Amino acid sequence: MHVRLADLAKLLGAELIGDPDLCVSSIGTLETADPNAISFLAQARYLAALRSTSAGCVIVGAVHREEAMARGAALVAADPYLAFAKLTQWWAKQGRSASVAGVHRSAVVEEGAFIAPDATVGALAYIGRGARIGAGAVIGTHCHVGGDASIGAGTVLKAHVTVSDGCLVGQRGLLHSGVVIGADGFGFAPNAGAWEKIEQLGSVRIGNDVEIGANSCVDRGALDDTVLEDGVKLDNLVQIGHNVRVGAHTALAGCVGVAGSARVGRHCTAGGGAIILGHLVIVDHVHITAATVVSRSIHKPGQYSGAFPFDDNASWEKNAATLRQLHSLRDRLRALEKKN
Amino acid sequence: MHVRLADLAKLLGAELIGDPDLCVSSIGTLETADPNAISFLAQARYLAALRSTSAGCVIVGAVHREEAMARGAALVAADPYLAFAKLTQWWAKQGRSASVAGVHRSAVVEEGAFIAPDATVGALAYIGRGARIGAGAVIGTHCHVGGDASIGAGTVLKAHVTVSDGCLVGQRGLLHSGVVIGADGFGFAPNAGAWEKIEQLGSVRIGNDVEIGANSCVDRGALDDTVLEDGVKLDNLVQIGHNVRVGAHTALAGCVGVAGSARVGRHCTAGGGAIILGHLVIVDHVHITAATVVSRSIHKPGQYSGAFPFDDNASWEKNAATLRQLHSLRDRLRALEKKN
Amino acid sequence: MHVRLADLAKLLGAELIGDPDLCVSSIGTLETADPNAISFLAQARYLAALRSTSAGCVIVGAVHREEAMARGAALVAADPYLAFAKLTQWWAKQGRSASVAGVHRSAVVEEGAFIAPDATVGALAYIGRGARIGAGAVIGTHCHVGGDASIGAGTVLKAHVTVSDGCLVGQRGLLHSGVVIGADGFGFAPNAGAWEKIEQLGSVRIGNDVEIGANSCVDRGALDDTVLEDGVKLDNLVQIGHNVRVGAHTALAGCVGVAGSARVGRHCTAGGGAIILGHLVIVDHVHITAATVVSRSIHKPGQYSGAFPFDDNASWEKNAATLRQLHSLRDRLRALEKKN
Repeated sequence: MHVRLADLAKLLGAELIGDPDLCVSSIGTLETADPNAISFLAQARYLAALRSTSAGCVIVGAVHREEAMARGAALVAADPYLAFAKLTQWWAKQGRSASVAGVHRSAVVEEGAFIAPDATVGALAYIGRGARIGAGAVIGTHCHVGGDASIGAGTVLKAHVTVSDGCLVGQRGLLHSGVVIGADGFGFAPNAGAWEKIEQLGSVRIGNDVEIGANSCVDRGALDDTVLEDGVKLDNLVQIGHNVRVGAHTALAGCVGVAGSARVGRHCTAGGGAIILGHLVIVDHVHITAATVVSRSIHKPGQYSGAFPFDDNASWEKNAATLRQLHSLRDRLRALEKKN
Repeated sequence: MHVRLADLAKLLGAELIGDPDLCVSSIGTLETADPNAISFLAQARYLAALRSTSAGCVIVGAVHREEAMARGAALVAADPYLAFAKLTQWWAKQGRSASVAGVHRSAVVEEGAFIAPDATVGALAYIGRGARIGAGAVIGTHCHVGGDASIGAGTVLKAHVTVSDGCLVGQRGLLHSGVVIGADGFGFAPNAGAWEKIEQLGSVRIGNDVEIGANSCVDRGALDDTVLEDGVKLDNLVQIGHNVRVGAHTALAGCVGVAGSARVGRHCTAGGGAIILGHLVIVDHVHITAATVVSRSIHKPGQYSGAFPFDDNASWEKNAATLRQLHSLRDRLRALEKKN
Repeated sequence: MHVRLADLAKLLGAELIGDPDLCVSSIGTLETADPNAISFLAQARYLAALRSTSAGCVIVGAVHREEAMARGAALVAADPYLAFAKLTQWWAKQGRSASVAGVHRSAVVEEGAFIAPDATVGALAYIGRGARIGAGAVIGTHCHVGGDASIGAGTVLKAHVTVSDGCLVGQRGLLHSGVVIGADGFGFAPNAGAWEKIEQLGSVRIGNDVEIGANSCVDRGALDDTVLEDGVKLDNLVQIGHNVRVGAHTALAGCVGVAGSARVGRHCTAGGGAIILGHLVIVDHVHITAATVVSRSIHKPGQYSGAFPFDDNASWEKNAATLRQLHSLRDRLRALEKKN
């Protein structure tokens, strides 16, 4: 693919500096881009890389216009990272072949399922009785869409996605391979030393524009529904327990676990491996550092952290051993203070 | 569905207070239940919600009989949480259509597999040579049951479950979508800077009444088998390494990892994200708090914890930095003590 | 299976002590082996078990030749653990039936896919347009090999593996059930409170002799590729973010997460549940203890740790509460020191 800078400037609403007929044929990072590639500068701390890049063209903000001009062609955009995102979207659209609408001959569609005429159902997929597949939706190979489940218009399920009976996925969503929506929440009552199952009678409701990473799980609610609001983004191997509510535009990175009945606000983020315990509330605009264990509610926006600082093993061993006596150290300190 | 309170009282062996002909049509929490719903009070700390609920009927223990009567109809049960569990089981049975026995035309069944006449094999499932599917078992769509594997009577595999060659699953089990039983344990011998595979010659044996959550994994043993005893409950995204033994009626929450050759006792629990290291022993009735790293054997029943307490980021940073000098702080404290 | 010790000695290049015609029919640990089994001693700390084992034969190193002879038949090998690994490989080969080459009648193969004549494509598998399946490769049931993806000679995909469009897997690899190669990396640009998708235009390149455990994920790169070099071993439920590079012969245990753009060196190991943050570099020969959070680059080989030491709940509570005041304790200690 070759594309003229003038066309890209128009596409991105950016100001072009340089030859409008110059072409680029790939997108690269500042480090790896060659003269046929376009790159971008999203953060000032990469300025050194801007100066040394071989990229044929760079997308920059107004604040870096001078530095960019000094080295060659540039597109000046109001938000260069957003312009880069839009460029990748346009690029992907050119490169990828569109799905062929229709139901693959090897798919199994139960009676009473509704599939929009322009939707795609891939090879070896299964669509249950009463399921609804919206306009332009794409159901990947080997997907399971359970009875009475609903997949919104324009939503894409990659290969091997499970959407269980009665679960609802909104529009323009993207569920990656191995995602499981609507497995039973983890609920049992103790009964004479054994566990009695609490059947999970709720469902899962997923809003519009939600993306869920590979092998992530969203359990159905016990009585009410588990809910992901619009624009939520989950990375891979994320666990969402029953009755959880994740607020709009919240993004959770890989390996995050959210235990049952937690309510996570809107516009929150959590770094990889964070654990959010159950039956607590996190307000909007809370940012949780990777590997933090959130063990009680958070009522104020802000950044919260809780990882143990790693160290070479010998130092860690000494500090960890001392940590187990920390409370008594405090008492000894108090005693000394009283003496003085 | 409409059900008379008199019928529910009989079903649950509970004492009915109120009009026996009153009907309910749903189950709700105290907060969300409307006058057509039945709810329950399992813990005294929700007493305020009992007083304000709109539920048509509530299940309570004898100790809360007065409070319940004061507000309307009630079912008084010996163990109200257990009664609620049984109610959900009955409710689910009414609402869900039974599986149709037989092998779906799109399933692939190898020669020499045995499938009980009243078992169900779903669409696009695969049953290997010599596999045995017990009476009334349900094999979901896209499941893989490997050669010589065995699925016990009444066990349900939801969509996309893998039970590898030679692995045994007991009776009345429930394996959720994406579960992988019997992948190779992680075993390698170092060989001149590379890794030489240790073939995993053991299998997996799963007892009766075991439930395993979505995308969880139980690896086959290296030489002996990996074992989950009767009544074990695993949540989603749980990892059970090779040669692990999990004792009867132990429950492990989401994202828990148990490393190879660990032996976890009976009637234990572990909260979400806990990590149990390998080659250690945990006795019966041990309860591990979420996100705890169990790095040595536990020989006494009780509750064990080990998460770093999270904090606002600025406070955490200061405390974490100091933690890296903790051992020297202790030495300085000692020095002061000697002076005094 | 019965095998003569003389034949095993030849196979393993080991010196036989004892009757060459003695046969064994299984492999066991020192604890569980019976007189028909062969076992091994890999570490001196199991010497007591060597003395008490009922095994018919034991594999030992030269250093333990005397102890082994004192109890019966033995194979003396240069590296007994490596000899044991090779023995398991030979044993597995005898016991397992070879895959039948060819494409199962229920598989779906798109036009323009190339499948080597001696490769195997299992039941209900899907092979996309332009995909290449190398000589002797085995594609398990329900696998998805996307368009233009490539599976190297001799590589085995167990049931339910997804290799997305354009991703490359080398030779002699082993991908366990539920593995997802090439889902989108987690990349979004903020846009007026919502998230704008950054299309992931890179791919995944996996070297030779790589093993990946059940339900693990390796995301495609944003612009460049995500790379696993030769001989990498990943356990179950491991997450590899976009643009990560994992160096040759590095092994990551279960539930490890590696965030985007991290570069992990060669010959490294990480214990279960470790989290490696993004955009950092770890040099060769670094060993990370289980559950450690690696939050900055590691420039020196060695062992690094960072788990919170667990304790009985009451002790943990006191120490954790004090930890939240650690910085002020340090200040108080300083104040005391000044006074003295």
